[in-house]
Amino acid sequence: MFDCVALVGATGAVGRIVLDQLHARNFPMRRLRLLASARSAGTKVRFGDEEITVELLEPSAFEGVDLVIASTPDEVSAEFAPWAVKAGAIVVDESGYWRMDPQVPLVIPEVNPQAVDNHHGIIASPNCSTTQMVVALAPLHAAVGIRRVVVSTYQATSGAGLAGNVELNASVEASLRGETHTPSTFQHPIGFNLIPQIGSQKYLGYTSEEMKMVYETRKILGDESIAVCPTAVRVPVATGHSESILVETRQPLTVEQARELWEAAEGVTVVDDLDNQIYPMPRDCDGRDDVFVGRIRQDISSESGIAFWCVSDNLRKGAATNAVQIGELLARKVVATS
Amino acid sequence: MFDCVALVGATGAVGRIVLDQLHARNFPMRRLRLLASARSAGTKVRFGDEEITVELLEPSAFEGVDLVIASTPDEVSAEFAPWAVKAGAIVVDESGYWRMDPQVPLVIPEVNPQAVDNHHGIIASPNCSTTQMVVALAPLHAAVGIRRVVVSTYQATSGAGLAGNVELNASVEASLRGETHTPSTFQHPIGFNLIPQIGSQKYLGYTSEEMKMVYETRKILGDESIAVCPTAVRVPVATGHSESILVETRQPLTVEQARELWEAAEGVTVVDDLDNQIYPMPRDCDGRDDVFVGRIRQDISSESGIAFWCVSDNLRKGAATNAVQIGELLARKVVATS
Repeated sequence: MFDCVALVGATGAVGRIVLDQLHARNFPMRRLRLLASARSAGTKVRFGDEEITVELLEPSAFEGVDLVIASTPDEVSAEFAPWAVKAGAIVVDESGYWRMDPQVPLVIPEVNPQAVDNHHGIIASPNCSTTQMVVALAPLHAAVGIRRVVVSTYQATSGAGLAGNVELNASVEASLRGETHTPSTFQHPIGFNLIPQIGSQKYLGYTSEEMKMVYETRKILGDESIAVCPTAVRVPVATGHSESILVETRQPLTVEQARELWEAAEGVTVVDDLDNQIYPMPRDCDGRDDVFVGRIRQDISSESGIAFWCVSDNLRKGAATNAVQIGELLARKVVATS
Repeated sequence: MFDCVALVGATGAVGRIVLDQLHARNFPMRRLRLLASARSAGTKVRFGDEEITVELLEPSAFEGVDLVIASTPDEVSAEFAPWAVKAGAIVVDESGYWRMDPQVPLVIPEVNPQAVDNHHGIIASPNCSTTQMVVALAPLHAAVGIRRVVVSTYQATSGAGLAGNVELNASVEASLRGETHTPSTFQHPIGFNLIPQIGSQKYLGYTSEEMKMVYETRKILGDESIAVCPTAVRVPVATGHSESILVETRQPLTVEQARELWEAAEGVTVVDDLDNQIYPMPRDCDGRDDVFVGRIRQDISSESGIAFWCVSDNLRKGAATNAVQIGELLARKVVATS
């Protein structure tokens, strides 16, 4: 049980869901405080039966706070996280800023819960597109070892926050009226279109979003030898990231074995019956916590590979839910050691 | 110059574009006839300054016809193509029915024009998702040999004909109003959603659409050793199929070499400048004939591979344009041999 939890970024797309999840999951805490920038400070936010006034995010804000859950842009996290650590809090951070810091565990509770033990005040939650992929890959990696992953994403607009969904609707409505809509959140109009760029160029023509899927996957699975070739694409879908994944395994794995591993895995739901038109789709995964896996096939282009389709709510397991689960994991550790 | 060309299926999504293309490209013919089922027979269709009355598709309809261009469902093609061949016509067929018949050349004029010489009355035009991929793969295959292809598609609703686009708009509009829309063309609602199924189960969990990309690619490139792992997905985009492709080559190939090969290739346009947010997108390729290639990267997960993003108008090069180009190829052969 935490005496005091602070949520940073409570008014954003992910922050709102963290708030819902803390209430719905009856998160083990006595008090919740909400922190945000000057723009949001002073506003009142409902939490169950309570109304909580958002306080200003400043160095002195973390006194008496045990746990911080934060969903902010990278540059905000870079500034505030040291304030919180100095005040003695543990920070569960959803931004990209700390993830690859060797001092910072990068954690998916179903995959590498043991990693939290090595924290120095900050624990990072992975990028949304990485999290769902690694939840699906982990049971295969544990069983037969993963050599290589080829992944193409179909990412929802809510990955760019509330503004992304506002822009999706505006762009679609403009198209239906035969008008043009000038984008401000995305690089190009997203209505009835695809944008094969998420983030900016990072390495050899791969974007920052794509390279997160390379580096973070290796760090979480603890295996620097895993090769990943990612392509990240924005699609005109509001919520739910989808991924077409081909995984090459070190030892052979049949479709039946892969399905059994996934059916036994925590956080994974198998939705796979092509003949009855049953497979994961963003519409069906919106608002759900699991990672959904379907279209499970033997790779017909290699000796030992599995091809599959993976969908998850990018705001839930891809962000809010994973952070709250890290908090729950820490709470169990507090109980266990006290 | 053909004395008489017959267009079968002139009132469909692809047929309309064939008609436009025949006119725009000043197709070498003296007379055009239009054939369709009883439902459309008798209607008048504009062709340049002319109005042509659609005639009934029946066994006697092909007398005096030299060339048939046909865009119909498979079962229609199965029935009428033998009538046309018997009457002495050459059939350029866009359906899937004849493509894998060993007696039928499967032709992309930029890739395997020589194959038309072996026809026995029927020449098939490949599936839309195959055509654009093979146009992009062919120059690499000719230069260094292709060993393996991993492809994930992002396919437009017009691949299912005019009804597909009507359903896309109806589904999107219903979603915007917060209403449900019952699909009739697609398996599930397509508005703000993705459907990872095109066609029905064909082989080991792969769909018919996916297996076309395996079999047709090998036939067109004349290399049965090429391995292909396809995933075909319907996206809420009206026109323009997109593909995330990873190609493993037999000999090493740099990004610079791949770009040079594509820049020199007929029918390919390179659109590739990530730092300036320039890459192919369906919106920009709508109504254009080329295959557009961008996001060209070294595969960072294998010894010799290239990852890229490929977009083309599925109704143009994916269907109508390729069929008309086969007709033009045949016209040049007629001139050359007469």
